[in-house]
Amino acid sequence: MAYELYYWPAIQGRGEFVRLALEDAGADYIDVARMGAGAAGEAALPFPLPQHGAVARPPFALPALKDGPLVIGQTAAILMYLGDRLDLAPADQAGRMWTLQLQLTIADAVAEAHDTHHPLSAALYYEDQRPEAARRAEHFRKHRIPRFLEWFEAVLAANPDSDACLVGRNVTYADLSLFQLVEGLRYAFPRAAARSLAKCPHVVALHDAVAERPRIREYLRSERRIPFNEDGIFRHYPELDG
Amino acid sequence: MAYELYYWPAIQGRGEFVRLALEDAGADYIDVARMGAGAAGEAALPFPLPQHGAVARPPFALPALKDGPLVIGQTAAILMYLGDRLDLAPADQAGRMWTLQLQLTIADAVAEAHDTHHPLSAALYYEDQRPEAARRAEHFRKHRIPRFLEWFEAVLAANPDSDACLVGRNVTYADLSLFQLVEGLRYAFPRAAARSLAKCPHVVALHDAVAERPRIREYLRSERRIPFNEDGIFRHYPELDG
Repeated sequence: MAYELYYWPAIQGRGEFVRLALEDAGADYIDVARMGAGAAGEAALPFPLPQHGAVARPPFALPALKDGPLVIGQTAAILMYLGDRLDLAPADQAGRMWTLQLQLTIADAVAEAHDTHHPLSAALYYEDQRPEAARRAEHFRKHRIPRFLEWFEAVLAANPDSDACLVGRNVTYADLSLFQLVEGLRYAFPRAAARSLAKCPHVVALHDAVAERPRIREYLRSERRIPFNEDGIFRHYPELDG
Repeated sequence: MAYELYYWPAIQGRGEFVRLALEDAGADYIDVARMGAGAAGEAALPFPLPQHGAVARPPFALPALKDGPLVIGQTAAILMYLGDRLDLAPADQAGRMWTLQLQLTIADAVAEAHDTHHPLSAALYYEDQRPEAARRAEHFRKHRIPRFLEWFEAVLAANPDSDACLVGRNVTYADLSLFQLVEGLRYAFPRAAARSLAKCPHVVALHDAVAERPRIREYLRSERRIPFNEDGIFRHYPELDG
């Protein structure tokens, strides 16, 4: 049975980390909200609260993955689940936990990237919090982008099995997600990302190697890859790039 | 061999979720930074980057748990690891993933609670971002506290095995963490938390039941429980409680 991905149809967002794992593995999946014609797709999305009876263990938010009767929310949990099934995680317990740790750190970076354009409230428009966004983005550019990327650089350099991937000698979902983090930072903060990445050759090499994996390469050139835009998590507002 | 917890010695913070699991299980553990006299304890804390050679897989941030040669960072990953070992997680795979999902949602709530007093930058003092904090806190009180707590309420009501715990019929690390989330919200936002909790009787009952578990009860009354304070994640600034 095909995996079903539930996520907003017009943005990469957090769903993209799941899409990349499914695409890289060549998994059979349905991007549920994108199957409908145009905006109608969103109608397929509601995951109501449990009192509505549709799902016994309803995710708090999207993305969610449905695998038969099992529904899983939280991007890192979805990826841990898929990693075991799609051969995108190491088999040993310590390696599995380390891969989860890496993913959770990527998730932290993604959440902070989001908050650069929405520092006060996700319920307000960016235009209603621009001065605050400028201050938060400055902190993110100066302190957080370097700290995150240099940590991943150090992790790659210290991997005793390979400096081309984060864990062991095979690609994991954390590598695919690091690729996506680099993509997003380069889109949203091209100048700041370039400055930090100049010090992170292993991270850049990993990004480039992931982009050349045959299924990922095909995916990135397909219509299934939604372009970055200013509705997603990584938004390019030039004034936030310093 | 005793577990070693690495976390800041003067705050509950994210380390408290780990402390509660260790305490509830009666596990043998060392709270490393608190073993030294006074502030000297912090000297025991550095987890250097891997190029420093001390740890092959260094956490990005604290808390970190050391179990023999294994070092794990990221609160949810630590708890998933401990959950299996301390009998604080279900044994089945679907239940383990659901418990992780619940924990990650608690982690999201905790991160948002932190950002109410630091909406712009963790590198600035609260006093340097008070107007912004007021706006972010208003959003958190009005929209996010109810959404999080009502989701947990619905999860408890929908658990087919018990409405006294989140997963199955036994206490998991997610229950202990929900207790702590309620504690923190009540400390930081007593008025807003009371308003939301009035609609969440199952959450309140779970909180109260956890507080009465013998080892937790003893822990909460001991000096090992650090009082809430305005250096931690949950800070009581009355102006942020509306």
